[in-house]
Amino acid sequence: MQNVVIIGAVALGPKAACRFKRLEPESKVTMLDQSDLISYGGCGIPYFVSGDLSDPGQLQSTSFHMLRDEKFFRDAKDIDVLTNVRALSIDRSKKMVHAQNVLDGKEQTFPYDKLVLATGSRPKRLPVPGTELEGVFTVSDLNEAVAIKRQVAEGKVEKAVIIGAGAIGLEMAEALADLWGIDTSVVEVADQILPGIVSANMARMGQHHLAENGVSIYLGEQVVRLEGDSRVQKVVTDKRALDADLVIMAVGVTPNSDLAKGAGLEVSPDGAIVVNERMETSDPDIYAGGDCVAVTDLVTGKSAHFPSGSLANREGRVIGTNLAGGNARFEGSVGTLIVKLFEISLANAGMSLKKALSEGFDALSVFVVQFDRAHFYPEKDLIYLELVVEKGTGRVLGIQGLGSMSDSMFARVNAVAAILKYRPTTADISNLELLYAPPFSSAMDILNALGNTAENTLAGKNRVIDADQFTNWWLERDKGDTVFLDCRGWGNAEYFVNKYPDHWKSIPQDELRVRMEEVPKEKRMVLICNTGVRSYEAQVILDEMGVRDTYNLQGGVASLKKWGLDL
Amino acid sequence: MQNVVIIGAVALGPKAACRFKRLEPESKVTMLDQSDLISYGGCGIPYFVSGDLSDPGQLQSTSFHMLRDEKFFRDAKDIDVLTNVRALSIDRSKKMVHAQNVLDGKEQTFPYDKLVLATGSRPKRLPVPGTELEGVFTVSDLNEAVAIKRQVAEGKVEKAVIIGAGAIGLEMAEALADLWGIDTSVVEVADQILPGIVSANMARMGQHHLAENGVSIYLGEQVVRLEGDSRVQKVVTDKRALDADLVIMAVGVTPNSDLAKGAGLEVSPDGAIVVNERMETSDPDIYAGGDCVAVTDLVTGKSAHFPSGSLANREGRVIGTNLAGGNARFEGSVGTLIVKLFEISLANAGMSLKKALSEGFDALSVFVVQFDRAHFYPEKDLIYLELVVEKGTGRVLGIQGLGSMSDSMFARVNAVAAILKYRPTTADISNLELLYAPPFSSAMDILNALGNTAENTLAGKNRVIDADQFTNWWLERDKGDTVFLDCRGWGNAEYFVNKYPDHWKSIPQDELRVRMEEVPKEKRMVLICNTGVRSYEAQVILDEMGVRDTYNLQGGVASLKKWGLDL
Repeated sequence: MQNVVIIGAVALGPKAACRFKRLEPESKVTMLDQSDLISYGGCGIPYFVSGDLSDPGQLQSTSFHMLRDEKFFRDAKDIDVLTNVRALSIDRSKKMVHAQNVLDGKEQTFPYDKLVLATGSRPKRLPVPGTELEGVFTVSDLNEAVAIKRQVAEGKVEKAVIIGAGAIGLEMAEALADLWGIDTSVVEVADQILPGIVSANMARMGQHHLAENGVSIYLGEQVVRLEGDSRVQKVVTDKRALDADLVIMAVGVTPNSDLAKGAGLEVSPDGAIVVNERMETSDPDIYAGGDCVAVTDLVTGKSAHFPSGSLANREGRVIGTNLAGGNARFEGSVGTLIVKLFEISLANAGMSLKKALSEGFDALSVFVVQFDRAHFYPEKDLIYLELVVEKGTGRVLGIQGLGSMSDSMFARVNAVAAILKYRPTTADISNLELLYAPPFSSAMDILNALGNTAENTLAGKNRVIDADQFTNWWLERDKGDTVFLDCRGWGNAEYFVNKYPDHWKSIPQDELRVRMEEVPKEKRMVLICNTGVRSYEAQVILDEMGVRDTYNLQGGVASLKKWGLDL
Repeated sequence: MQNVVIIGAVALGPKAACRFKRLEPESKVTMLDQSDLISYGGCGIPYFVSGDLSDPGQLQSTSFHMLRDEKFFRDAKDIDVLTNVRALSIDRSKKMVHAQNVLDGKEQTFPYDKLVLATGSRPKRLPVPGTELEGVFTVSDLNEAVAIKRQVAEGKVEKAVIIGAGAIGLEMAEALADLWGIDTSVVEVADQILPGIVSANMARMGQHHLAENGVSIYLGEQVVRLEGDSRVQKVVTDKRALDADLVIMAVGVTPNSDLAKGAGLEVSPDGAIVVNERMETSDPDIYAGGDCVAVTDLVTGKSAHFPSGSLANREGRVIGTNLAGGNARFEGSVGTLIVKLFEISLANAGMSLKKALSEGFDALSVFVVQFDRAHFYPEKDLIYLELVVEKGTGRVLGIQGLGSMSDSMFARVNAVAAILKYRPTTADISNLELLYAPPFSSAMDILNALGNTAENTLAGKNRVIDADQFTNWWLERDKGDTVFLDCRGWGNAEYFVNKYPDHWKSIPQDELRVRMEEVPKEKRMVLICNTGVRSYEAQVILDEMGVRDTYNLQGGVASLKKWGLDL
């Protein structure tokens, strides 16, 4: 019989509480939360704001439609929940939590045998004038989401500006632009969307899709102030002023660790509570988990802050087990993210190339485009994958993907995410065993092709450029430095050769050996096909013939289209 | 400069040849095949027969619509292909292959530096009278597929019988029944469909779906003869006679290893050519791969025969690399399979419980049903997963899944397939990091829930029955041994309580503590909810109250529906 107190009743708190109570039904659990709304799926906020969900209670309900409120926790789980109660301090020597009711100001003390900190994180606010104006929001909690949706539903919002093109910012942009038809812009200080998450090449593809769906993106712009009388009217950046009735700041989160710091618990330099694999803080009677803690990044080996409802749930179960005397471990995270943007999905696991380089890895990345199913199967879609690998060792450091909304890209990135902690090499990806039948995958699946391409590139056999570099060279084509050689059949090449007779040449890959004298050997050559397979084959043949100043366009014409180059 | 000869030009042969030629363009490759049709996707045959593909050439084409015929291999790949040439014997001392043209009978000799055996497998034929009748087929090659489709397309077939309910048999059943509307039956000697692949419980769910789509399944029946004059008219089993205009025998395959045996190469007891991880046979100048070899089962650690176009392709690349002096390895296979049956998919990776027990593992399995996406996300589907784990160690031995055709089940089984070779335990599944956002997955994904359930069950905390056992007890309900306790809200339970007042009781899980006196403690109790989550919670509460003769229905009412129990 123990007395467990949990501070915070969203995601991790309830999970730890319920797990613990199933293992030790006779023990007592009290869960405090400073808000009136608890145990909701915060990650679902964009889908509530968009109108996909009509009622905030849907985010707070179980899969069997019971509202997870105080009564639910008492009746179904035998757990006491006190809402509107803010923890003020922890007295570790007396094992007491001091708290205050935020409605009536009354203070109260909660003794504990074990304490769980599930204090989460809070959105960062920009340090610029005007963020206090009416109509300026963050995506902090369900109450704020309700307020945003009310303004939208009342028809008060014609123009919205999202500050920050991370996952939450982009999900909110879709929410506003898609169903509500609001004129939506996103301002991002970095030079790409999803910075630190996907490559510039893939980010550009996502940006093109956002633009096609009416979302304007302003990259490399710093917001300097928000303007308006009582209500916000303008977002002013270092480059322009954007009209706005609604502004959402989505510029990252900060772990809520003041309570832990105040109690003298160890906190990392970036403000996250330090825990071991058992999710114990520096005080073994106090556990912490979820958005307020740092865990091990299983790819870098370093401590890192990964705010995620999924991690919180899994960590919560570990805490629940350990509260009951178990010895469960949470090893860490490989750092995964997936985001839906209208009709596409973008995902990552592990490190992007930029991140890998900044972490000191000598790394490169390869990019492959292929159908998700057997190419002869009638229903299929292209998947775009990028693999980040360490030179020398061939170690796989990360993978990113872009796909439709069919789960096929999700399936590939998940399979790699699952093995990242085992430190796979390119050979493990080349031979990764995906479930195979033509309606689901290819005999040589895109994941295997990705591993093969990485291996070839590491061996110096595949000299490539991506759509970014292609575009640079293409826009400078009148300089005459570069020839663009189409390695597809004439049927595919004809249109381009006729449109750009000085620049675009056609020699199908299977005719290359007999038409070698037509090859413009004196110039830099970009080799082009639909997805990069035949152009690679052409490069091998040209190499054999001693023509080596060639560059295979990774992902081929498919990637140029996705990237948005108008040819 | 080497002279490489490859025997067999489907899947592995072409893959090895092309990979090798990209690495050593100056070397010579000659590929022989006894058929006139080469390099086709054999796994696509059911989709050609069904009419999803109109032309057999689609199975023989590249993703960029070039027919992979002799000309293609010569022009695009610089590889010589000789069709209609059957290899008769190998003279290893002289390094020569003796072959014969099957059209004109002329014999020819091919010297080699390195030889690749890509001889594939052939369908087994039933040892019963009548298999030589017209209208009786196997699914051996593209020519036979063309013959089957011709008969179907000519309207000659009203009733078809498939012998064998493995993946190919069921794919062919769907092909005939779905688009052609042929009255199709499947006869299987085992007591379930997909024997050795999925559990009886999951097989029954697949069978129910096949029945809903008009395919009749006869289990536990042995075919004793086929009857007819010149054309087949009846399939006679030990229990019945079925009319048939078309019969397809899909009762497994045998590796084609006569050539290897004749040359004195090592062959396994089940007739598969023995190779090492470099895909070398017992003669280091002779490689073999694909359906004719045995590889390591990475779960059992034993040698096994896994005929699969996907393995063949990956093994082919390994051979191509090694022919060019590389040192690529093919570790083996974890044994995966996925099959589309009309609107559902069934999959496995690793061992089923039955297989695990027969391999001497002390194992159990758990079954979980959950939505693929966040339960509050509007578009979602149920996934059904079964995990096979070893008692004591908690080692994960296999996983099976049933889902819709959205790739969401595929994604989960793939993630586990990817880690099986690393010998994961239930804790690795509980904490497996899937990419999370509400449109793709749950914060506590079904895979994590599956790991958690396995852990609980191994700890003796979750006493379960599945739909099979439920049905047995339900059909004997008038004996009065069992009470069926519905743990859902009254709204869900009402219909059943009114229909079966003597057997079906309602106490919602959250009211159990205060309505304990209503619990029929003296009888065996089956606890029921939608998917098995609330009934597990109810079991924990009843345990605490000392009521322990309770059984949680795994997968809940959702699994009963899928199983086809009429309640």
